[in-house]
Formats: sequence, structure tokens, C-alpha cells
Amino acid sequence: MNCIFCEIVSGRSDASVVHEDENVMAFMDIRPWTSGHLLVVPKRHASGLADLDPGDGAAVFAVGQRLATALRHGPMRAQGVNLFLADGIAAGQEVFHVHLHVVPRTAGDGFGLRGMPKSPSRIALDQTAGVIRSSL
Amino acid sequence: MNCIFCEIVSGRSDASVVHEDENVMAFMDIRPWTSGHLLVVPKRHASGLADLDPGDGAAVFAVGQRLATALRHGPMRAQGVNLFLADGIAAGQEVFHVHLHVVPRTAGDGFGLRGMPKSPSRIALDQTAGVIRSSL
Ligand SMILES: [Zn+2]
Ligand SMILES: [Zn+2]
Repeated sequence: MNCIFCEIVSGRSDASVVHEDENVMAFMDIRPWTSGHLLVVPKRHASGLADLDPGDGAAVFAVGQRLATALRHGPMRAQGVNLFLADGIAAGQEVFHVHLHVVPRTAGDGFGLRGMPKSPSRIALDQTAGVIRSSL
Repeated sequence: MNCIFCEIVSGRSDASVVHEDENVMAFMDIRPWTSGHLLVVPKRHASGLADLDPGDGAAVFAVGQRLATALRHGPMRAQGVNLFLADGIAAGQEVFHVHLHVVPRTAGDGFGLRGMPKSPSRIALDQTAGVIRSSL
């Protein structure tokens, strides 16, 4: 099946691992956006959020939260942290095994978001909320 | 204390709500990066990941996962979804009550990340991993 993160989880591919437990593994991104950029993955393969076991999702987030706190309060001395997850090609997903990016931030590091926020009316927001509620 | 998200949770400020349960609320971002941009917040105030109850964090992520799936497979017809969380001013956090952004994506929507990934050696990655492991 040839999933690079399954290869890492099984030990068949190298990774610089920082955390491993029964359900989750965390290791360095080999193409870091900033120094210390980590990926947190469920050990059980899931291609995206739709097929991710909710318990595995909660476990991934919990490890991301712990890592973020360690990056800010430990020797990495990050001034902030971004958590980021891409679900689908249109969202920038490149490896189809769910992964949460944990990105240490410092002022002026050049990383961030691009985009122009809009200011819709409350009526427009309420209409969109209604459409989303109907699909839950 | 004057926290806008606590005001929304308590019902003292307006919001376009899509989900509410015992621990979590989700509503439309009033400055959306794309149409359908949602925020998921714990009802219990926490300024950042360091003081966020881990159970609340897991609950926030679980709701984000459900919303992402609804955005992609329901009438919003998103082609992808990004989850994003900013912890600290250096990471772009503006409201100091933890919130997970859920951002529907379509090809060419103009939203995304900026930054230049690097390609450190395995030795450098292993060294950084060691520093992070020591702080866990
Ligand atoms: Zn896999
Ligand atoms: Zn608050």
C-alpha cells in the first residue's frame, strides 16, 4: 500500500521520533517550515478526517497540545505554536495519512497564513450557519 | 474579564452558532478566510494550549473533525478543509480564548500558508528531536 507514515510507524522507514505511545507517533517533519516543526500521526492508517477514528483524533490532538506546551516552555523556547491539519488536496494535503503539524513560531520567522478575510453581514453568516447545521 | 468568546458562550453576545454541547461551542468566524469558516471553542475559558484542560482539547478536536466532514460531504461541498490553531501572539493568536479554526477549501480560493520549507540533514533533525524529547 506504500504509505510513508505507515512505513515510519512500523519502523521500516527512518524518522526522528520525539514521542510514541500505543496509538500515536510524533516525529520531525523532514521539510520543516520552522526549526522544530513536528508531525503527529495516528498509528492506525486513516487517509483523512472522514475515516479517522474519533478516539485516534482526540489522541493526536492531545499529543499535539503536549508538544506545543513543551516547545514553548522547554529549551526550544518557541514564542508561539501553530497547529495545522490539511484534509484533502484542495487544502494542501500531500501525504494521505492524517497528520497534525505542530509548528514552533518566533517573531519574524516568515511563516504564516495568506488570505484576505471578508466581513459578511450577520444575515449572511446566519444563513451559512443554517446550511452547515442542516448537514450535521 | 471581558473575553468575547466567553460572552458568546454565555449568550451575552451574538453568534451564528452551528453546534453546542456540554463542553464545546462552534460558530461562524465573523472575519472568514473562506465562506463557511468556523471557530470551535471550549466553553470553559482557557487562554491557550498550556492552560486548556486536555479533555476540553479532545472535545474541541472531535467537533472540528465532525464539522470538517460535514463541510466536505454536505451541501457546502468543500473540496478540502484546514484545521488551524494559533497559540501565542507570535503564532497569530488574536483572541485569548482557545479556538480551532475550521476552514472549508476550494481550488483557487486564495487561502493558504506562506513560508519556505527547509531540508535539514537527518543528523540535524535527530539533534532537534533530542532537544524536544528532553522537554517532554
Ligand atoms: Zn498510513
Ligand atoms: Zn473566554
